[in-house]
Amino acid sequence: MENSKKHSKMPKVTILRWGHRPHRDARLTTHVALAARALGASGFILSDIEDESIRATVEKVTRNWGGSFLFEMGTPWKKVVKNWKMNGGIVVHLTAYGENIQTSGVLQRIKESEKEILIIVGSQKVPGEFFLEDFSDFNVAIGNQPHSECASLAVFLDRLFEGEELKRNFDHARMKIIPQKRGKKIIQHL
Amino acid sequence: MENSKKHSKMPKVTILRWGHRPHRDARLTTHVALAARALGASGFILSDIEDESIRATVEKVTRNWGGSFLFEMGTPWKKVVKNWKMNGGIVVHLTAYGENIQTSGVLQRIKESEKEILIIVGSQKVPGEFFLEDFSDFNVAIGNQPHSECASLAVFLDRLFEGEELKRNFDHARMKIIPQKRGKKIIQHL
Repeated sequence: MENSKKHSKMPKVTILRWGHRPHRDARLTTHVALAARALGASGFILSDIEDESIRATVEKVTRNWGGSFLFEMGTPWKKVVKNWKMNGGIVVHLTAYGENIQTSGVLQRIKESEKEILIIVGSQKVPGEFFLEDFSDFNVAIGNQPHSECASLAVFLDRLFEGEELKRNFDHARMKIIPQKRGKKIIQHL
Repeated sequence: MENSKKHSKMPKVTILRWGHRPHRDARLTTHVALAARALGASGFILSDIEDESIRATVEKVTRNWGGSFLFEMGTPWKKVVKNWKMNGGIVVHLTAYGENIQTSGVLQRIKESEKEILIIVGSQKVPGEFFLEDFSDFNVAIGNQPHSECASLAVFLDRLFEGEELKRNFDHARMKIIPQKRGKKIIQHL
Protein backbone atom coordinates (compact mmCIF):
# COMPACT_ATOMS: atom_id res chain seq x y z
CA MET A 1 0.00 0.00 0.00
CA GLU A 2 1.49 3.27 -1.08
CA ASN A 3 1.62 5.88 1.62
CA SER A 4 1.88 9.30 0.07
CA LYS A 5 2.35 12.39 2.17
CA LYS A 6 1.19 15.82 1.21
CA HIS A 7 4.45 17.63 1.66
CA SER A 8 2.77 20.99 1.68
CA LYS A 9 0.99 19.94 4.86
CA MET A 10 3.79 18.02 6.57
CA PRO A 11 6.88 20.19 6.26
CA LYS A 12 10.26 18.78 7.18
CA VAL A 13 11.44 20.22 10.46
CA THR A 14 14.80 20.22 12.19
CA ILE A 15 15.47 21.60 15.67
CA LEU A 16 18.58 23.61 16.48
CA ARG A 17 19.29 23.62 20.20
CA TRP A 18 21.47 26.57 21.11
CA GLY A 19 23.18 27.21 24.42
CA HIS A 20 23.32 23.71 25.79
CA ARG A 21 25.58 23.39 28.81
CA PRO A 22 26.63 19.82 29.64
CA HIS A 23 25.37 18.54 32.98
CA ARG A 24 23.43 21.69 33.77
CA ASP A 25 21.09 21.37 30.80
CA ALA A 26 21.35 17.61 30.40
CA ARG A 27 17.78 16.73 31.20
CA LEU A 28 16.15 19.72 29.62
CA THR A 29 18.04 19.31 26.35
CA THR A 30 17.15 15.63 26.32
CA HIS A 31 13.51 16.53 26.84
CA VAL A 32 13.66 19.03 23.98
CA ALA A 33 15.17 16.42 21.67
CA LEU A 34 12.70 13.67 22.60
CA ALA A 35 9.74 16.02 22.35
CA ALA A 36 10.98 17.09 18.93
CA ARG A 37 11.10 13.46 17.83
CA ALA A 38 7.73 12.53 19.30
CA LEU A 39 6.02 15.56 17.82
CA GLY A 40 7.10 15.14 14.23
CA ALA A 41 10.53 16.70 13.74
CA SER A 42 13.02 14.89 11.50
CA GLY A 43 16.17 15.80 13.36
CA PHE A 44 17.98 17.65 16.09
CA ILE A 45 21.20 19.63 16.07
CA LEU A 46 23.06 20.38 19.29
CA SER A 47 24.97 23.45 18.20
CA ASP A 48 28.50 24.48 19.18
CA ILE A 49 29.11 21.72 21.68
CA GLU A 50 29.38 17.98 21.85
CA ASP A 51 27.62 15.99 24.51
CA GLU A 52 27.95 12.25 24.18
CA SER A 53 25.47 11.51 26.95
CA ILE A 54 22.68 13.40 25.19
CA ARG A 55 23.45 11.68 21.93
CA ALA A 56 23.50 8.28 23.56
CA THR A 57 20.13 8.87 25.20
CA VAL A 58 18.43 10.15 22.09
CA GLU A 59 19.86 7.52 19.78
CA LYS A 60 18.84 4.80 22.19
CA VAL A 61 15.25 6.04 22.12
CA THR A 62 15.34 6.07 18.32
CA ARG A 63 16.80 2.56 18.23
CA ASN A 64 14.12 1.21 20.54
CA TRP A 65 11.12 3.20 19.47
CA GLY A 66 11.78 3.47 15.76
CA GLY A 67 11.86 6.06 13.05
CA SER A 68 14.85 7.86 11.59
CA PHE A 69 15.43 10.85 13.84
CA LEU A 70 18.76 12.44 12.99
CA PHE A 71 21.05 13.64 15.75
CA GLU A 72 23.94 15.99 15.04
CA MET A 73 26.20 17.86 17.44
CA GLY A 74 29.09 20.26 17.61
CA THR A 75 28.30 22.33 14.52
CA PRO A 76 28.59 26.10 15.04
CA TRP A 77 25.11 27.60 14.98
CA LYS A 78 25.98 30.27 12.45
CA LYS A 79 27.14 27.62 10.04
CA VAL A 80 23.96 25.62 10.51
CA VAL A 81 21.78 28.66 9.86
CA LYS A 82 23.85 29.84 6.88
CA ASN A 83 23.75 26.43 5.21
CA TRP A 84 20.08 26.08 5.93
CA LYS A 85 19.23 29.31 4.22
CA MET A 86 21.59 28.61 1.34
CA ASN A 87 19.68 25.39 0.77
CA GLY A 88 16.43 27.29 0.57
CA GLY A 89 15.06 26.57 4.02
CA ILE A 90 13.54 28.99 6.53
CA VAL A 91 14.47 29.66 10.11
CA VAL A 92 11.92 29.99 12.89
CA HIS A 93 13.16 31.33 16.21
CA LEU A 94 10.99 30.49 19.21
CA THR A 95 11.12 33.31 21.71
CA ALA A 96 8.79 34.85 24.30
CA TYR A 97 9.31 38.15 22.47
CA GLY A 98 8.05 37.00 19.10
CA GLU A 99 4.73 37.19 17.34
CA ASN A 100 2.09 35.41 19.38
CA ILE A 101 1.12 32.28 17.49
CA GLN A 102 -2.48 32.66 18.63
CA THR A 103 -3.06 36.30 17.77
CA SER A 104 -0.97 36.81 14.66
CA GLY A 105 -0.89 35.11 11.28
CA VAL A 106 2.70 33.98 11.71
CA LEU A 107 2.01 30.25 11.61
CA GLN A 108 0.03 30.63 8.42
CA ARG A 109 2.88 32.53 6.83
CA ILE A 110 5.30 29.81 7.87
CA LYS A 111 3.10 27.11 6.39
CA GLU A 112 2.60 29.04 3.19
CA SER A 113 6.34 29.25 2.61
CA GLU A 114 6.27 25.48 1.98
CA LYS A 115 9.94 25.33 2.86
CA GLU A 116 11.94 23.14 5.19
CA ILE A 117 11.99 24.62 8.65
CA LEU A 118 14.83 25.01 11.10
CA ILE A 119 13.47 25.84 14.55
CA ILE A 120 15.93 27.50 16.90
CA VAL A 121 15.35 27.01 20.62
CA GLY A 122 17.72 28.55 23.12
CA SER A 123 18.34 27.39 26.65
CA GLN A 124 19.03 30.75 28.15
CA LYS A 125 19.25 34.33 26.92
CA VAL A 126 20.10 34.14 23.24
CA PRO A 127 22.35 36.47 21.22
CA GLY A 128 20.54 39.50 19.80
CA GLU A 129 21.46 38.28 16.32
CA PHE A 130 18.83 35.55 16.56
CA PHE A 131 16.15 38.18 16.10
CA LEU A 132 17.70 39.66 12.98
CA GLU A 133 16.59 39.01 9.44
CA ASP A 134 19.97 37.52 8.54
CA PHE A 135 19.26 34.69 10.91
CA SER A 136 15.59 34.22 11.65
CA ASP A 137 12.84 34.50 9.11
CA PHE A 138 10.21 34.36 11.83
CA ASN A 139 10.20 35.02 15.55
CA VAL A 140 7.38 33.12 17.18
CA ALA A 141 6.05 33.19 20.73
CA ILE A 142 3.79 30.62 22.32
CA GLY A 143 2.16 33.32 24.38
CA ASN A 144 4.30 36.23 25.51
CA GLN A 145 5.12 34.92 28.97
CA PRO A 146 8.39 33.41 30.17
CA HIS A 147 8.02 29.67 30.49
CA SER A 148 9.77 26.72 28.85
CA GLU A 149 11.40 26.18 25.49
CA CYS A 150 10.34 22.56 25.71
CA ALA A 151 6.70 23.55 26.15
CA SER A 152 6.95 26.14 23.38
CA LEU A 153 8.49 23.73 20.94
CA ALA A 154 5.84 21.13 21.66
CA VAL A 155 2.93 23.48 21.07
CA PHE A 156 4.53 24.91 17.95
CA LEU A 157 5.02 21.46 16.40
CA ASP A 158 1.54 20.31 17.37
CA ARG A 159 0.05 23.35 15.68
CA LEU A 160 2.33 23.17 12.65
CA PHE A 161 1.45 19.54 11.99
CA GLU A 162 -2.15 20.03 13.13
CA GLY A 163 -1.97 17.06 15.44
CA GLU A 164 -1.21 14.62 12.62
CA GLU A 165 2.26 14.00 14.00
CA LEU A 166 0.67 12.06 16.86
CA LYS A 167 -0.74 9.49 14.47
CA ARG A 168 2.45 8.62 12.71
CA ASN A 169 4.00 5.21 12.77
CA PHE A 170 7.66 4.79 13.67
CA ASP A 171 9.38 2.30 11.38
CA HIS A 172 11.49 -0.53 12.76
CA ALA A 173 10.35 0.06 16.31
CA ARG A 174 11.43 -2.58 18.81
CA MET A 175 8.91 -1.30 21.31
CA LYS A 176 5.49 0.11 20.76
CA ILE A 177 2.87 1.27 23.23
CA ILE A 178 -0.72 0.32 22.60
CA PRO A 179 -2.85 3.10 24.10
CA GLN A 180 -5.00 2.08 27.04
CA LYS A 181 -7.69 3.68 29.15
CA ARG A 182 -6.08 1.96 32.12
CA GLY A 183 -2.74 0.31 32.69
CA LYS A 184 0.24 -0.19 30.41
CA LYS A 185 0.46 -2.21 27.24
CA ILE A 186 3.68 -2.56 25.30
CA ILE A 187 4.59 -4.74 22.34
CA GLN A 188 8.24 -5.69 22.22
CA HIS A 189 10.10 -7.19 19.26
CA LEU A 190 13.08 -9.08 20.52
CA MET B 1 -16.32 46.56 30.48
CA GLU B 2 -17.55 43.28 31.81
CA ASN B 3 -15.45 40.27 30.87
CA SER B 4 -17.49 37.10 31.16
CA LYS B 5 -15.95 33.70 30.62
CA LYS B 6 -17.81 30.69 29.36
CA HIS B 7 -16.85 28.30 32.11
CA SER B 8 -17.85 25.32 30.07
CA LYS B 9 -15.13 26.26 27.60
CA MET B 10 -12.43 27.39 30.00
CA PRO B 11 -12.28 24.76 32.74
CA LYS B 12 -10.27 25.43 35.85
CA VAL B 13 -7.09 23.40 35.83
CA THR B 14 -4.55 22.59 38.51
CA ILE B 15 -1.33 20.68 37.96
CA LEU B 16 -0.07 18.07 40.41
CA ARG B 17 3.64 17.45 39.98
CA TRP B 18 4.56 14.07 41.40
CA GLY B 19 8.05 12.70 41.98
CA HIS B 20 10.00 15.90 42.16
CA ARG B 21 13.52 15.43 43.48
CA PRO B 22 15.20 18.62 44.68
CA HIS B 23 18.27 19.65 42.70
CA ARG B 24 17.94 16.82 40.22
CA ASP B 25 14.55 17.93 38.91
CA ALA B 26 14.91 21.60 39.76
CA ARG B 27 14.86 23.00 36.26
CA LEU B 28 12.40 20.57 34.79
CA THR B 29 9.89 21.05 37.58
CA THR B 30 10.27 24.80 37.23
CA HIS B 31 9.62 24.50 33.52
CA VAL B 32 6.52 22.41 34.16
CA ALA B 33 5.19 25.00 36.61
CA LEU B 34 5.88 27.98 34.35
CA ALA B 35 4.45 26.25 31.31
CA ALA B 36 1.34 25.43 33.35
CA ARG B 37 0.97 29.10 34.27
CA ALA B 38 1.63 30.40 30.76
CA LEU B 39 -0.77 27.93 29.19
CA GLY B 40 -3.80 28.62 31.30
CA ALA B 41 -3.63 26.57 34.48
CA SER B 42 -4.75 28.19 37.73
CA GLY B 43 -2.31 26.52 40.06
CA PHE B 44 0.43 24.02 40.73
CA ILE B 45 0.93 21.53 43.53
CA LEU B 46 4.34 20.06 44.25
CA SER B 47 3.30 16.87 45.99
CA ASP B 48 4.98 15.11 48.91
CA ILE B 49 7.99 17.36 49.10
CA GLU B 50 8.89 20.96 49.82
CA ASP B 51 11.28 22.86 47.64
CA GLU B 52 11.72 26.48 48.52
CA SER B 53 13.81 27.29 45.46
CA ILE B 54 11.05 26.17 43.10
CA ARG B 55 8.47 28.14 44.99
CA ALA B 56 10.63 31.23 45.01
CA THR B 57 11.18 31.04 41.26
CA VAL B 58 7.55 30.48 40.39
CA GLU B 59 6.21 33.10 42.76
CA LYS B 60 8.69 35.63 41.45
CA VAL B 61 7.45 35.06 37.91
CA THR B 62 3.87 35.51 39.09
CA ARG B 63 4.79 38.69 40.96
CA ASN B 64 6.49 40.18 37.92
CA TRP B 65 4.33 38.89 35.14
CA GLY B 66 0.95 38.99 36.80
CA GLY B 67 -2.07 36.83 37.34
CA SER B 68 -2.97 34.71 40.33
CA PHE B 69 -1.20 31.40 39.86
CA LEU B 70 -1.39 29.37 43.06
CA PHE B 71 1.63 27.43 44.25
CA GLU B 72 1.33 24.75 46.90
CA MET B 73 3.88 22.21 48.10
CA GLY B 74 4.39 19.33 50.47
CA THR B 75 0.89 17.86 50.36
CA PRO B 76 0.81 14.06 49.96
CA TRP B 77 -0.45 13.21 46.50
CA LYS B 78 -3.07 10.78 47.72
CA LYS B 79 -4.58 13.47 49.86
CA VAL B 80 -4.65 15.93 46.98
CA VAL B 81 -6.38 13.43 44.73
CA LYS B 82 -8.83 12.31 47.37
CA ASN B 83 -9.87 15.86 48.22
CA TRP B 84 -10.08 16.77 44.59
CA LYS B 85 -12.52 13.98 43.84
CA MET B 86 -14.49 14.63 47.00
CA ASN B 87 -14.98 18.17 45.80
CA GLY B 88 -16.38 16.91 42.52
CA GLY B 89 -13.34 17.40 40.32
CA ILE B 90 -11.81 14.99 37.82
CA VAL B 91 -8.26 13.71 37.57
CA VAL B 92 -6.36 13.46 34.31
CA HIS B 93 -3.13 11.50 34.33
CA LEU B 94 -0.71 12.32 31.51
CA THR B 95 1.20 9.21 30.54
CA ALA B 96 2.76 7.78 27.39
CA TYR B 97 0.59 4.71 27.98
CA GLY B 98 -2.75 6.49 27.92
CA GLU B 99 -5.34 7.10 25.25
CA ASN B 100 -3.80 9.03 22.39
CA ILE B 101 -5.29 12.51 22.43
CA GLN B 102 -5.25 12.62 18.64
CA THR B 103 -6.85 9.29 17.87
CA SER B 104 -9.34 8.84 20.70
CA GLY B 105 -12.23 10.93 21.98
CA VAL B 106 -10.64 11.32 25.39
CA LEU B 107 -10.28 15.11 25.25
CA GLN B 108 -13.90 15.50 24.25
CA ARG B 109 -14.99 13.36 27.18
CA ILE B 110 -12.87 15.44 29.51
CA LYS B 111 -14.39 18.67 28.23
CA GLU B 112 -17.89 17.28 28.42
CA SER B 113 -17.48 16.50 32.10
CA GLU B 114 -17.43 20.26 32.71
CA LYS B 115 -15.58 19.68 35.97
CA GLU B 116 -12.46 21.15 37.46
CA ILE B 117 -9.43 19.25 36.30
CA LEU B 118 -6.42 18.05 38.24
CA ILE B 119 -3.65 17.03 35.84
CA ILE B 120 -1.05 14.67 37.27
CA VAL B 121 2.40 14.78 35.69
CA GLY B 122 5.13 12.53 37.02
CA SER B 123 8.85 13.10 36.73
CA GLN B 124 9.87 9.47 36.48
CA LYS B 125 8.15 6.14 36.59
CA VAL B 126 4.92 6.63 38.49
CA PRO B 127 3.19 4.21 40.91
CA GLY B 128 0.83 1.77 39.22
CA GLU B 129 -2.01 3.27 41.26
CA PHE B 130 -2.00 6.37 39.07
CA PHE B 131 -3.63 4.33 36.32
CA LEU B 132 -6.43 3.01 38.48
CA GLU B 133 -9.97 4.30 38.57
CA ASP B 134 -9.65 5.28 42.22
CA PHE B 135 -7.10 7.86 41.21
CA SER B 136 -7.30 8.86 37.58
CA ASP B 137 -10.50 9.40 35.68
CA PHE B 138 -8.60 9.63 32.41
CA ASN B 139 -5.19 8.50 31.25
CA VAL B 140 -4.07 10.64 28.35
CA ALA B 141 -1.06 10.33 26.04
CA ILE B 142 0.29 13.05 23.79
CA GLY B 143 1.34 10.45 21.28
CA ASN B 144 2.46 7.06 22.61
CA GLN B 145 6.18 7.74 22.54
CA PRO B 146 8.46 8.49 25.48
CA HIS B 147 9.31 12.16 25.54
CA SER B 148 8.74 14.95 28.05
CA GLU B 149 6.10 15.62 30.63
CA CYS B 150 6.65 19.31 30.05
CA ALA B 151 5.92 18.94 26.35
CA SER B 152 2.91 16.72 27.05
CA LEU B 153 1.43 19.13 29.53
CA ALA B 154 1.86 22.03 27.15
CA VAL B 155 0.12 20.32 24.26
CA PHE B 156 -2.67 19.06 26.49
CA LEU B 157 -3.40 22.53 27.87
CA ASP B 158 -3.21 24.14 24.44
CA ARG B 159 -5.75 21.65 23.12
CA LEU B 160 -7.97 21.82 26.19
CA PHE B 161 -8.19 25.59 26.02
CA GLU B 162 -8.16 25.61 22.22
CA GLY B 163 -5.41 28.18 22.09
CA GLU B 164 -7.47 30.79 23.96
CA GLU B 165 -5.12 30.60 26.91
CA LEU B 166 -2.49 32.41 24.83
CA LYS B 167 -4.69 35.48 24.53
CA ARG B 168 -5.36 36.01 28.16
CA ASN B 169 -4.27 39.04 30.06
CA PHE B 170 -2.38 38.70 33.33
CA ASP B 171 -3.65 41.14 35.95
CA HIS B 172 -1.29 43.35 37.93
CA ALA B 173 1.67 42.52 35.75
CA ARG B 174 4.79 44.56 36.39
CA MET B 175 6.26 43.42 33.10
CA LYS B 176 4.58 42.73 29.82
CA ILE B 177 6.03 41.72 26.48
CA ILE B 178 4.64 43.36 23.37
CA PRO B 179 5.01 40.83 20.56
CA GLN B 180 7.40 41.81 17.80
CA LYS B 181 8.39 40.45 14.44
CA ARG B 182 11.94 41.46 15.31
CA GLY B 183 13.65 42.42 18.54
CA LYS B 184 12.38 42.67 22.07
CA LYS B 185 9.78 45.02 23.48
CA ILE B 186 8.86 45.06 27.14
CA ILE B 187 6.69 47.42 29.14
CA GLN B 188 7.70 47.71 32.78
CA HIS B 189 5.68 49.24 35.58
CA LEU B 190 8.00 50.40 38.32
